Order: sequence, then structure tokens, then C-alpha cells
Amino acid sequence: MPSKNDQCEILSGVFEGKTLGTPISIMVRNQDARPEAYREMETAYRPSHADFTYQAKFGIRNWQGGGRASARETIGRVAAAAVARKVLAQAIPGIEVVAYVRQIHTIEAEIDSHTVTLAEVESSIVRCPQPETSGKMIELIQTMRKEGNSVGGVIECVIRGVPPGLGEPVFDKLEADLGKAQLSLPAAKGIEFGSGFAGTRMTGAEHNDPFEMEGGRVRTKSNYSGGIQGGISNGEDIVFRVAFKPTATILRPQATVNVEGEPLELAARGRHDPCVLPRAVPIVEAMAVLVICDHWLRHKAQSSL
Amino acid sequence: MPSKNDQCEILSGVFEGKTLGTPISIMVRNQDARPEAYREMETAYRPSHADFTYQAKFGIRNWQGGGRASARETIGRVAAAAVARKVLAQAIPGIEVVAYVRQIHTIEAEIDSHTVTLAEVESSIVRCPQPETSGKMIELIQTMRKEGNSVGGVIECVIRGVPPGLGEPVFDKLEADLGKAQLSLPAAKGIEFGSGFAGTRMTGAEHNDPFEMEGGRVRTKSNYSGGIQGGISNGEDIVFRVAFKPTATILRPQATVNVEGEPLELAARGRHDPCVLPRAVPIVEAMAVLVICDHWLRHKAQSSL
Amino acid sequence: MPSKNDQCEILSGVFEGKTLGTPISIMVRNQDARPEAYREMETAYRPSHADFTYQAKFGIRNWQGGGRASARETIGRVAAAAVARKVLAQAIPGIEVVAYVRQIHTIEAEIDSHTVTLAEVESSIVRCPQPETSGKMIELIQTMRKEGNSVGGVIECVIRGVPPGLGEPVFDKLEADLGKAQLSLPAAKGIEFGSGFAGTRMTGAEHNDPFEMEGGRVRTKSNYSGGIQGGISNGEDIVFRVAFKPTATILRPQATVNVEGEPLELAARGRHDPCVLPRAVPIVEAMAVLVICDHWLRHKAQSSL
Amino acid sequence: MPSKNDQCEILSGVFEGKTLGTPISIMVRNQDARPEAYREMETAYRPSHADFTYQAKFGIRNWQGGGRASARETIGRVAAAAVARKVLAQAIPGIEVVAYVRQIHTIEAEIDSHTVTLAEVESSIVRCPQPETSGKMIELIQTMRKEGNSVGGVIECVIRGVPPGLGEPVFDKLEADLGKAQLSLPAAKGIEFGSGFAGTRMTGAEHNDPFEMEGGRVRTKSNYSGGIQGGISNGEDIVFRVAFKPTATILRPQATVNVEGEPLELAARGRHDPCVLPRAVPIVEAMAVLVICDHWLRHKAQSSL
Repeated sequence: MPSKNDQCEILSGVFEGKTLGTPISIMVRNQDARPEAYREMETAYRPSHADFTYQAKFGIRNWQGGGRASARETIGRVAAAAVARKVLAQAIPGIEVVAYVRQIHTIEAEIDSHTVTLAEVESSIVRCPQPETSGKMIELIQTMRKEGNSVGGVIECVIRGVPPGLGEPVFDKLEADLGKAQLSLPAAKGIEFGSGFAGTRMTGAEHNDPFEMEGGRVRTKSNYSGGIQGGISNGEDIVFRVAFKPTATILRPQATVNVEGEPLELAARGRHDPCVLPRAVPIVEAMAVLVICDHWLRHKAQSSL
Repeated sequence: MPSKNDQCEILSGVFEGKTLGTPISIMVRNQDARPEAYREMETAYRPSHADFTYQAKFGIRNWQGGGRASARETIGRVAAAAVARKVLAQAIPGIEVVAYVRQIHTIEAEIDSHTVTLAEVESSIVRCPQPETSGKMIELIQTMRKEGNSVGGVIECVIRGVPPGLGEPVFDKLEADLGKAQLSLPAAKGIEFGSGFAGTRMTGAEHNDPFEMEGGRVRTKSNYSGGIQGGISNGEDIVFRVAFKPTATILRPQATVNVEGEPLELAARGRHDPCVLPRAVPIVEAMAVLVICDHWLRHKAQSSL
Repeated sequence: MPSKNDQCEILSGVFEGKTLGTPISIMVRNQDARPEAYREMETAYRPSHADFTYQAKFGIRNWQGGGRASARETIGRVAAAAVARKVLAQAIPGIEVVAYVRQIHTIEAEIDSHTVTLAEVESSIVRCPQPETSGKMIELIQTMRKEGNSVGGVIECVIRGVPPGLGEPVFDKLEADLGKAQLSLPAAKGIEFGSGFAGTRMTGAEHNDPFEMEGGRVRTKSNYSGGIQGGISNGEDIVFRVAFKPTATILRPQATVNVEGEPLELAARGRHDPCVLPRAVPIVEAMAVLVICDHWLRHKAQSSL
Repeated sequence: MPSKNDQCEILSGVFEGKTLGTPISIMVRNQDARPEAYREMETAYRPSHADFTYQAKFGIRNWQGGGRASARETIGRVAAAAVARKVLAQAIPGIEVVAYVRQIHTIEAEIDSHTVTLAEVESSIVRCPQPETSGKMIELIQTMRKEGNSVGGVIECVIRGVPPGLGEPVFDKLEADLGKAQLSLPAAKGIEFGSGFAGTRMTGAEHNDPFEMEGGRVRTKSNYSGGIQGGISNGEDIVFRVAFKPTATILRPQATVNVEGEPLELAARGRHDPCVLPRAVPIVEAMAVLVICDHWLRHKAQSSL
């Protein structure tokens, strides 16, 4: 994942401070690679990491840091989204995309997605906007680090101010494209929109969002739909949650095999994060921004906005 | 969704009983449309259906049956998958794709995804392979129908026999493409792979799947990963669950507005299904088959199989 | 190629006389197939037709009429373009797309692409808007039919009224996309824009199109560029010419081999056209319309029009 | 276009001398930009260059060297093709892709595409493998340079050793994809395959390539088809010619207008090439290599090779 020392170099597409309309290429050199910390992975497969599957697919892999399986690749997503945000700010004035840590391990925060602010999120180093819960999460992560263990959790994201009409009726439903984007993130194993899995335990009479007029606009009284109906935005807050599994690389010894198929015990060394969620928050936002921007461009081409 | 009376007509791509290698076009005429049952929808928006969002996007919509927002469109997916299954049967001998109803409303079945069979699934009219739970689900659905209400639930799908190596490292991870495919289904609001959301409550030491050798193959002792690591299949069962919201169209009167923005009460008439899950099972399978077939073709082009 | 008896059936995307914004599917059944006239092709390869290459690629082919290698497939292009023309008429009022036969065998017409009209083209059964040359072409084609031989030629197409700005800087230059579209037509073996191959015999000082102002617009005094500079339309007439080879299927006996590799003499029977150009004119127009419409949608998304 | 001082830096996709199967990113910094030589273009439009069309499309352009309209961008194509050549060498052993200057202005060489070698091409600084003609071309280019004028011409390319079966039946015919690729090159204004435009002056009886058996393979006695029939390779040499217009940027004063619409005389300064063809030869080859490699991957996925 992106670090504070990363330097973005814009290689193309910008001239005298303005975009040219042609592709913008941004490069970030990984100046903090530590290949020696990955020496064991040259021959051994970390459990639940990509070492084995890459080897199986390609017959070769860059074991020095994980190659493309390193979350370092997500910096490209964040850099692209920084540009897309500027596009969206002009295209959909007032649009807000805010993600935050909702749950780590069994610690869960109650957060009102409709009102939560970026400032609240950024005031917590684990990016959980509820101070008390944030404190408990920090404690848990420190314990995990000490124990050479790791935890996962859930990031929630809200997109406010999207007009009705973004998304496509069949294959490119807004849930489908947001879902693909989020599930392409390292360690993401699930996504749900609006009421999600919990909504499957409600009846239709409870779950349907009744329409009403408000300020001349069609609105819904509740928002179990999470802002998307029939694959298309309905103007309400778009809300979704992404499940991230516990970090695969842990310092504790684990049973595994090596490239020759021999059993061994493997303990990772180095800087592996016992919980990726706080650093995944901007990436979840980035992917949301990119998808909304793409659908806005599509909608602009085919309809009018 | 497909009905038993639907007739598939193959328009192209097949000659004397064999595929030609060129696109296969299949047409199914909707011979059972009942536009008169949708007359109210010409002006009123069904809560949580696509009536309002289509109108907002396109400024026009086919209110007779819901147009593309009708699950009738999924017949194309099932027809395509029927062909893709034949490809996969040759490409990956022994591959099995089995989906089943795991949960309806609060009624949940315990099913062993590793051993469940298509025959067990098809022996239940609600496609829940656990007879006792199946009985309770049928009762609940009958109650819902009587009450003009509806329920949702969860479909689980297992893909057995996929070799290691399918999927791509970054944007087209296997979870991402399976996720997009499933979230493009009508009423789907969430998806999770392997341990999914529950896995976020485990630690890394518990959740990681240790590697071991079995019959000369690299295997994992557990399968919290759901058969996919780093976005690529690892040879274990691929397992995922899809959340379907309760059917939006219910017979009970609901508050809504019409095209002019006037409030009204709307009660649907006609054949609306109080629970779509049993009929969504083959569609979940179909989308899984299509994604695996696509990734097999990609893998065949770029690597070897 | 399309015939007058073909019936278009619109299967989707249109409701009460208006487009819905969703894909429009149009079906035309081939009601005039005569498979028995192709019986020889079951085993023999027609010289310069697709019989051998399809067999080599797919190991199977539909020999009854040529399958996808039949120009009958172009009806889909013409039907799609009929819709695209309606879009363009609203998007770019005053746009005109006119194609015509410029040359058949060695008979060449002098035609002013800037002023030629659709009415002039349609007044000739060979779609050559110069009456005297049209007469000679008709005579030649009749001779060819009598002799069981065939001829090719050149179709010119002009697109008038395209605003400056359509096209992309690098891979999707307007010449590139128009070129791909036209070279995807059966029997097309070449394309040139503006001065084309003849322009390679001029110097830069002669060939460059000087800019000047006219009616407040930037215009060019000459149009050797054929309306496209740097891959993007410049507001002048877009002009290109497509080379069509002589029809491969001829009634005269030709040396060839059969599927077993045995030499034989093959003479086609049936309705094979000794010159496809007159019937290819609407197809050249159709592909031009589709490309311009696509680029207009792209431009609308990324810029403003 | 690429220069000898350009340095390629491989940013990704290669590890310890081998490809990883993941995207290979190659960067070449333009270390020889001379923005000051383009100062006039900040406000004035070079006739037949992209200055005006970029301004019209984007409302902004990088006038320092032409931005994406500079043939400098083609280095990316050549770098990519260097990798694709290595793939093809393994995929289709014995494949040869050779391009050469066939014509400059009115000076035309007679070259046997079936036997011409890369060594013969590279022995000429204008890449015309016929020594006498090469000498005349060099003289002409020197005259043009002295006169501040420019010339265009024709590059021919032959691809030998492609097996039958590459290409697709309808939209992605091999001519269509090769055509798009070549017409995406700066200054390219036409392409023809096999007999091309000249073939339109032949009859079908003359033009058809009779099949015969040779060494157990189906071959053609002549090759007017240029190695492609029905959009698919037939195993014979693939031959095409690309028309390049005279260089637009010339040192001689030309009439034009500026951004304000005022008329002026513009004379370019700097290093502008009076004839781009010799340097375009490797780019034509590069695009041919990329298209054949792409189609080989497609064919490998859908059929077998």
C-alpha cells in the first residue's frame, strides 16, 4: 500500500498544470523494497498468500516482496483516483466519497454513514471515526503485532450526492462494477450493498424503500437498497461494506511446503502489517471514485446529465 | 427467470450438431408476457424496483413486465452457460458447479459444500439439499404468498475440480470477476468467498490455510480462502455465497409516488414470486460457469493448461 | 448482402416507437438460402474464397452458402447503421454520408465528392453517379456475367459536415477506425484517405493543406488530408476509397483441390454476382456511419460538443 | 520516432532475465526534446499537422514538440514489438517479418517480397533493399532537405511463415486488424493487401489464386490475396503496402492562421525529417508483429495451433 515517502512522477498527459485530454501516466518507484526480508519465500509458499498460486499459474514468480501480489500495487489506483476526484468534483458538484473502518476482528463501531466526515475518519490512526472503538482497535492491533498474529475486518464506504441514473441495466449494474473493483483489492473476500446479508433476513414489506417527494425530488424514506435499484443509482447515499481477511503474512511459524513439495515451518520476518484495514481505507475510496467516474462518462455519452 | 415453456432457438454458430467456432446466437421468445398485469407501473414506481431509476436514467421505460429489469433476461445467461458447460466438460474433465439455497429469511441449512450433489439439490423444489430445512422453507414461502409479502436469502455455490492457476493478479482476480458476474444478477446485493464476512472475526493464525502435500499435489488443510488466493485458483473447492434481497414486487399495498410526483398506494397484481431463490440457483451456476470458462480461455492463451 | 425481400424484426430496445436506451436487437431470417447450390463446396475449396481458411482454422465449416463468409452477414451492419443514422441526424445536424462506385475494373468515373448527392447515386443501378460511365459499367458487368467471370473496383465515400474533433490521437485515429471498419467487409483489400497512394507522389509543399479563415471557422484551402489530420477530423469533408477485389466465386471452371488434397476443376453454380460493388455501396456507408457515431459518443463523454 | 540515444528502462514484468507473465512496462525518457524549436506552434497551426485538430478537440495542446502527435510516441510500439517478437519466435518458429521502403515520391523499386532479407534492407540507409533505387532515393531526400521541402512514399511489409488460421471471420479480419494498426501510425493515409488497388483492374479469372498441393500442404499458385482469404491467413506470405504522406512540417514558409484566426506565414525550424519512410520501416514491422502475436494468442485460446 502507498507509503508517505512515495513520490509520484507524472510522465504524460499534463501540460502547464492542466490535463491535455490524453492519458495521464504516473510513476512511483518503490524506493523502500527490502528483498532480503523475503528470501524464504524464494522456495516456500506462505499459507493463504499468492506464492503458490502465482507459481502454479506462471511457473515463475518474483518472490522479492510478493511482486504484483504486494499491496504496493494499489498506489496506482490511489494516484489514478486523485485525478478522477478532480473530474468528479466538476462533474457532480458536492459529491462525497468517505470510507472508514467499521469493524476489526470482533470490535465493531456504530457509525452513521449519512453524516460521517472525512475529518472524523482521519482523526483516528486506524481510520475508525468512533473514538472509543478506535481506541480498542488500536489496542487489539498492538496485541496482534506482539503475538506475531494478524486480524481482518470490514471497511464501509458511503458515496453521497450521486444523481439518479448512473449504472447499466444488465451486466454493468452499479453493484457489479463497484463489486468487481473492490474485490480486486488484495485481501478482499466479500462485499455487500445497503442492507446486504442482513437484509436477507427481512421481508419485502420491511425491506422495500417507500418513495416520497422531498424538495421536488423523488426520494426514499429508508435506504435498505444502499442507493442502487435495478443496478442504477437512485440518488440516495450509495453504501457498501468490504470484508478483508486477516493479513496472510504473519511472524508466527506456520506449516507449509516448499517448491519441492517438502513440508517445513515458515515464519515471516520484516514489516508485515498485522492489520491492513486502516491503510486500505483510501484504496476502497479510490476504487469507488474510479467506478463512479467511469459510469459518469458512460452516462454522459449515452444520455445527458 | 427461465420457465419450463421457454423454447430456445439456435440462430447461428451450430452446423449439423457441432459448433462452428463462430458466435452462437440463441433466441427465446417471451411467449407468456402479460402486459396488462403491469398497467399500474406505467405511471407508478414500485418501491425498491427499477421503475424509478430507469425513468431517471433514460426518460422512458418499458413498464410492461419490467423490460430489462425483469429476471426474464437471465434466460440468456442460462442458455449461454449450457454451451459453456460443454466446453468446460472437455477443458477441465471432472469439473462440477453446484449451487443451492443455503438460507431463506432466517431459516438456514447446514450443508457440506464439499460433498453436496446436484441430485440432492434438485430433489427439493426450493433447491435446498437438506430435506428438513427445505420443508420449513417451503412452508415459509407459502405463508409469504398468502400474506402478499416476500423473502430473500442466500445461495451458496461450489465449483469443484478447478485446477490451480485460473484468475489474474490485479484487476481481474477470480473473486473480482465472479463477484461482478453474480452482482449483475437481479436482486443480488452481496457476495462473499470462503470464510467471507465471518472470516473477518478470525485471526491470521486461525484463518490461514496451511499447505501440505497430498497425492503429489500441493493442497491446503483448511479452505477458508474459498479456493482462491491472490486472485488465482489454488485447486481447492471454490466456494461463495450470494445475498438476494426479498422480492421487491409484493401484493400488499405500499406507499410510493407516481411519475407526476403524487403520493399513492400501490399493490401489485399477478404472478410475482414471493421468493426468487429457488429459481435463481441455476442462474448463479450459469454465471459461475461463464466466468470459469472465460478464465480458462485466457489462461489457455497466456500459459498452458 | 441485404436483399429487398429481407424482413427486419426488432427484438429488443424499442418501445412504442421510441428507443429505450438499452441494446436494440434486430433479426433478419435468411429466407432465400439455397444450400443445394453449394453442394460442391462441401468438399472442394473455391479459389480465393474462405472455404480453405475456415476449414484450416476451425476444422469444420458451414459450406451451405459460405456461412459467415457470405456477404449476407452485412445486413446486420446495415440494420445497425439505420439506427445510428438517426442518432447522428440529431447529434450532428446536416451530416451527410454518401458512397458511390468510382471505378469498376478499368472504367473510372470523375466525381466531385464535395457535391455528389445520394439521389445521383441512386439514379444508377450500379450506383455510379456519372451517367455515361454508369452505362459502360453496366455493359461490362453484363459481359462478365455472360463469360462466367467477375470484376472488382473502387467505392468512394464522403462524409460531409463532421465537426472538428472526432478521433483519438494514437491507436484509435479516425483513419484507423474507419480503416478497420471498411477492411472488415468481404472482398475489401485496401483503403486510402484523401490523396491516399497518389499523394505519396507529391511533395510536402504541394500536399499540405493551407489553413484560412472562412465564415469565422478555420478551414483548409485544399483537402489532400481527406478531412483528417493527426487522426482527428478537421471539419472538412472526410473522403476515402475502398478497393474491392473481383468476386471470388465464378462460374468458369477453376483448378483447385478438395478436402482430401486431390486436384479437381470447380465451376460454381447459382446466383453469384459478377460484381459486388453496387451492392457494397450501402455497406460502406453503414460502416462509416457506425464509426462516426461511436467516435461522437466517445467525444461527447470526454469533451463537449 | 525512436532515436539511437533512447534508453529503455523495464519497469515491471521481468525478473532475473525472464518474463513473469504479468504486464511488462517499458519507459523511455525523451532526453532530446527541444521545446524552443516549436515556439511558433504555440499560437500557429502547421498546415496538415495535428496542431489545429488537437486544439479543436481538447481546447489545449502541448505545442512543445507536438505532444502525442509526434512520431516519438512510436517508440512504445517498437519496444512492445521487441518483446512480441520473442513470443512469436517460440510460437511460430521460422516466422519472418520484413518491411522496406518500396517507393519514395515517384522513385519506385521492384522488390521480390518473397525473398527480400532484413540484411538487404538494413544495408541501405533509406531501407530500400535495391541498391540503385536506394541511391536515387538518398539523392532526392538530400534535395528536399536543401529545398526545405519533403516527400512521402510507400512501405511494403511481408510476413512469411504464418500458419493458416489466424484472423477472425467478421469484424476482426486479419486485414482489418493489420489495417487499423498501420493506419494508426503518424502520416499513414492508406493500406492495401496483396494485389490491392491494382487488383481491382483484374478479372476474377485472373485474380483468383488456384489451390494446389505442395509437400502435403494446401498452397496457392499465385498470391494476389496477399496471404489472407476471408479475413484469415492461408499460409502464404502476408503482403501489404502502407502509404505515407509527405512530412507535414517543412522549413519553407507556408500560409496558415493562428489561434486567434489571423492569417500568417509559418516556416518551421529545427530537425524536421524531409522523409519519414526510412525510420518508419521498423514501426510498420512492429505493428505487424503485435497484430500477429495478438491473433496467435486468440487462436491459441479458441482453437489449437
